[in-house]
Amino acid sequence: MSQGLFYDYWRSSAGWRVRIGLALKGFPGAGGFAGPEGFSRIAVNLAPAISEQSGEAWRAINPQGRVPALVLAQDPPVLLTQSLAILEWLDEIRPQPAFLPADPTGRAAARAFALSIACDIHPLNNVSVLSFLRRQFMADDAAISAWCQEWLRIGLGPLEENLRRRGYQSGFIFGEAPGFAEICLIPQLYNARRFQLDLAPFPLLREVEAACLALPAFADSAPERQPDAPPPQ
Amino acid sequence: MSQGLFYDYWRSSAGWRVRIGLALKGFPGAGGFAGPEGFSRIAVNLAPAISEQSGEAWRAINPQGRVPALVLAQDPPVLLTQSLAILEWLDEIRPQPAFLPADPTGRAAARAFALSIACDIHPLNNVSVLSFLRRQFMADDAAISAWCQEWLRIGLGPLEENLRRRGYQSGFIFGEAPGFAEICLIPQLYNARRFQLDLAPFPLLREVEAACLALPAFADSAPERQPDAPPPQ
Repeated sequence: MSQGLFYDYWRSSAGWRVRIGLALKGFPGAGGFAGPEGFSRIAVNLAPAISEQSGEAWRAINPQGRVPALVLAQDPPVLLTQSLAILEWLDEIRPQPAFLPADPTGRAAARAFALSIACDIHPLNNVSVLSFLRRQFMADDAAISAWCQEWLRIGLGPLEENLRRRGYQSGFIFGEAPGFAEICLIPQLYNARRFQLDLAPFPLLREVEAACLALPAFADSAPERQPDAPPPQ
Repeated sequence: MSQGLFYDYWRSSAGWRVRIGLALKGFPGAGGFAGPEGFSRIAVNLAPAISEQSGEAWRAINPQGRVPALVLAQDPPVLLTQSLAILEWLDEIRPQPAFLPADPTGRAAARAFALSIACDIHPLNNVSVLSFLRRQFMADDAAISAWCQEWLRIGLGPLEENLRRRGYQSGFIFGEAPGFAEICLIPQLYNARRFQLDLAPFPLLREVEAACLALPAFADSAPERQPDAPPPQ
């Protein structure tokens, strides 16, 4: 009997946030089968071609049909959705290492950094949105790429400026350890590369990324490292 | 000397969230000038035609150029952005009335409800996104309306189902008082009407809305009641 089930998809960047969060909080096995101390990971395939079939069964559990989600092994089972709500929950049930600074204005700044990604960038590059653009607006690959790059550029620019204003030089953004800000930033930079965005204008964000990817919690939870990822070509 | 400045725009639904939050926590004057106990509201015009000019000055303060934001009257002043981060901050500095349930799984459920709106619906109907669709994809009014209705329908359906599964009948969703879920839902339903979505399939969400709009914190903070709203035709 594990802590419960973790519904995830290798390419979901919101899923990657939760994988990082589980790893940082010391839950074992987020990458696969977990013993009694961890969550058992279940891969839900969100690729458009087959999501119709698998989506039906998954929506019976989670009406939103999205991942990530946790189903806590309680009686009755408890469904937790939305990556940031799951991260807040993790931080409440297991306060160390903390995902947020201790003072309220510091916490607000860290949450705002994360929300700037989760609300203002990520939703616009979501697979369902890109499918709609192709279907309704006949968007081709070049148009999709321009669309994604627009929101990435508009979103990442102010975050780079944010780091510059707070005198960031190296390491993590809001203290000695990574938290909400880094957990959202690293998967988003991965997505930015996937959409061929030039990251040269964002040296401070890349510095944060380097600090994070040196940690197993970030590196081992990367999309390609998940069991449901396709084998390398 | 007030608590600080509240940058807002009458039509911003994220701004409305903060107006509701300030009112529920008992800060006076969120609708206009505030005495020492409140925030002084500054209207930032985000309408596309003039946002270029006013945007410059505003971005010098907030690199994202978005509203809502608070600037706390401290030395040096502290900028708080992102409506949900501001609501969490309000709930931390003034815990009563609480915006979230007391138990971690209840808190996670309430936050997930709010994030389903803030991440999965609202960003797609944002004015900057609609402008891009018009510019790059030659979207006309009908296409914009279809776009907005798609994300509203996909987003609101699971929230209605969420209420049904939790046996919601009347009043507020997560207890005796409104919180994160209602603060995000009411402005989004207002937007849904603006985009001519038929709300008949969402009787439970409309029941929550009726309970909220009976409260001055929701009714008095409505877009049309703000000093920068255009006069009624």
